[in-house]
Amino acid sequence: MQRDLDRLMAERNLDAIIVEGPDGLGAANPAFNYFVRGAHVVGTVIKKRGEPAMLIHSDWERLQAEETGLVCVSSSRWNVREIMSRIPDRLGARVELRRQMLSDLGVRGRVGLYGTVQVGPFLAMQRLLEQAVPDVEFVAEYDKDILSAARLTKDDIEVEAMRAVGRKTCEVVQAAVDFIAAGVADGDYVCDARTGRRLTIGAVRQVIDRELAARGMVGEGTIFAQGRDAGLPHARGEDTMELKRGEAIVFDIFPKDASGYHHDMTRTFAIDFAPPALQQLYDDVLGSFHAVVQEFESGAPTKPYQTLVCNYFAERGHDTIATTYPIEEGYIHSLGHGLGLEVHEDFGFPSFADRGDVLVPGAVFTVEPGLYYPSRGMGVRIEDTYWCRPDGQFESLTDFSKELIITLKGQRQ
Amino acid sequence: MQRDLDRLMAERNLDAIIVEGPDGLGAANPAFNYFVRGAHVVGTVIKKRGEPAMLIHSDWERLQAEETGLVCVSSSRWNVREIMSRIPDRLGARVELRRQMLSDLGVRGRVGLYGTVQVGPFLAMQRLLEQAVPDVEFVAEYDKDILSAARLTKDDIEVEAMRAVGRKTCEVVQAAVDFIAAGVADGDYVCDARTGRRLTIGAVRQVIDRELAARGMVGEGTIFAQGRDAGLPHARGEDTMELKRGEAIVFDIFPKDASGYHHDMTRTFAIDFAPPALQQLYDDVLGSFHAVVQEFESGAPTKPYQTLVCNYFAERGHDTIATTYPIEEGYIHSLGHGLGLEVHEDFGFPSFADRGDVLVPGAVFTVEPGLYYPSRGMGVRIEDTYWCRPDGQFESLTDFSKELIITLKGQRQ
Repeated sequence: MQRDLDRLMAERNLDAIIVEGPDGLGAANPAFNYFVRGAHVVGTVIKKRGEPAMLIHSDWERLQAEETGLVCVSSSRWNVREIMSRIPDRLGARVELRRQMLSDLGVRGRVGLYGTVQVGPFLAMQRLLEQAVPDVEFVAEYDKDILSAARLTKDDIEVEAMRAVGRKTCEVVQAAVDFIAAGVADGDYVCDARTGRRLTIGAVRQVIDRELAARGMVGEGTIFAQGRDAGLPHARGEDTMELKRGEAIVFDIFPKDASGYHHDMTRTFAIDFAPPALQQLYDDVLGSFHAVVQEFESGAPTKPYQTLVCNYFAERGHDTIATTYPIEEGYIHSLGHGLGLEVHEDFGFPSFADRGDVLVPGAVFTVEPGLYYPSRGMGVRIEDTYWCRPDGQFESLTDFSKELIITLKGQRQ
Repeated sequence: MQRDLDRLMAERNLDAIIVEGPDGLGAANPAFNYFVRGAHVVGTVIKKRGEPAMLIHSDWERLQAEETGLVCVSSSRWNVREIMSRIPDRLGARVELRRQMLSDLGVRGRVGLYGTVQVGPFLAMQRLLEQAVPDVEFVAEYDKDILSAARLTKDDIEVEAMRAVGRKTCEVVQAAVDFIAAGVADGDYVCDARTGRRLTIGAVRQVIDRELAARGMVGEGTIFAQGRDAGLPHARGEDTMELKRGEAIVFDIFPKDASGYHHDMTRTFAIDFAPPALQQLYDDVLGSFHAVVQEFESGAPTKPYQTLVCNYFAERGHDTIATTYPIEEGYIHSLGHGLGLEVHEDFGFPSFADRGDVLVPGAVFTVEPGLYYPSRGMGVRIEDTYWCRPDGQFESLTDFSKELIITLKGQRQ
């Protein structure tokens, strides 16, 4: 949580942190958005230990800057025109501007660097800046950096935002299910009851995108993958493919709303019926899901849960990433990941090296066991978003049934 | 254009370029998307001079990787598990993996770095990698880097994509205009003809977002700003504000579609009528627009066009950025910017230091003069996207009228 930042800065011996917020990134700069709370603003956040965070912004965006609630510092405080006339080289001018900012704002000592940037401009400036401000030691944290550590635990405002986006996401999934269920069987395929035309993945995707937009959500990369594609965890699904009865459909949706926070859920469906092999696969995945969730315990390390799921599947004859590498069929990934301003946040259930993650109160993360057999034309994944509450109980933020079958209810017109 | 890359690499003495494509960035990594053409894939692009670009990708995403048409190299070629068991430190393991990749793929000499990254992990890795591969000189280009130079000129495929997103954007603007025009006057305000409720900016925004989604577009940050907010170029507009007749409305929309390419256009509207002061402001902006566009000449430097517009406005009594700095009212920004995979690309009409930009055939850019008077509760901006064709002619990709007035046509029901 943000209120942990001063404590974390003291633990890591950081005197200040700088979070870059360049133009054009939107949600792709979660470290910056953690401070500006989704405001459409460009700038730099600087927080010194024990002081509130400042946002250096352009005069143009002062309204958006004020919305953030941060201490606002207009960049017009520095005379860019004077610097640029004195130093015609743009890189040199930018380094000088940054040097003046750090000096005037009293930023010195050990300073951590965060945010999303373009490699070239950033590295070019950073190399020169390190020479220009010898009293600053710039710290690059690789792993579990201070903002990831703060963001790992969500405060009440964040949980409410994530609850809301979870509720809206479930509504969107329900709308897609209802759209399919309103179809009629046509041999192996499914037709629109009104037009008689075959339903395609593209038609379902239109429903999904429309329902997302109607709720102020954006959901790039939604997976709606059928048959073999359901067996390839990152295949999005082909829009021209017609829906087939009795085939595995993996529907994985991870949208965000204006708050910037995401939900992430997956359901596997089969239309009208499931062949025994698919039903067995589904039962194994659902069984693993329940088996692992009932073992969750606040404060417990995460890696044993990945081992638990691997063992569960191995006992049922599936190959797993615990014993085979590289692996293409069976249980081929890890159990889940942190969720928040990013779809994949810095928390997981590792297959290999343990990173010391524990199920800490405040964490929000996905639980998503799956089995993949592209060679048999099927795959199954089931995913809920879980929150470890302050009281140590685990609560699913994904209030949606785990029924495999979508029964066609349409009447031919 | 991409086919210029080998020539540009020779001119800049680069033996290879590396374009980072980490997870979770989507459209916010235009350098990477320039190669993968919008595919939902994570990885690294490496191109050696005189050889086709390679995409290093995970086995999971081989379908998406193959879609890109790049030479695909699965990261399973390297034994991550072996590296991680030998080097338990995650940063050390990542540096060793990268070292092996560069070595096995024969990347040496002067290597340019591009793409969007998180500062901390990137800089931490880069500092160690530079020690681990002393035969590589990593080059950070600050300004007008090689990919910006290539991307500045659009090839036929890119122009067709931009034409399509331009056409769809104009349809969305028309839908919003039609929605407003269907309203009825209610004193100073506008009501929905059917419900009798006052129209708000939020209601217009819902129409815009719905129409964008229906065309497979995403348009974050759309500006629909009325009155004083129209005088603040980056104010988005308040959703709760009711539409008022006779007020300036600045409508600036810059969406992208699945191709990843953007359109960018602005219209200023007044509902039913414009007070004389607003009409005068509008005439001045539209006059400057025509004055500058008719002077466009292929191969000409861009800075004089900014000067031309400043002079045009100064002659009509407006303060401009050419003579006042910082400036809050009058003509306060520059004439336009490059457009493509980013809303703001590396091309412009500078107010201060000349960066040597010229109107080169293939360039796609915005033309957007504006005048801003928040203290008088108004602002006007008019913006089209222009393409400098291979034959040296200039063509607007924004086929939309420049009428100021939206006349209410609704009948009270």
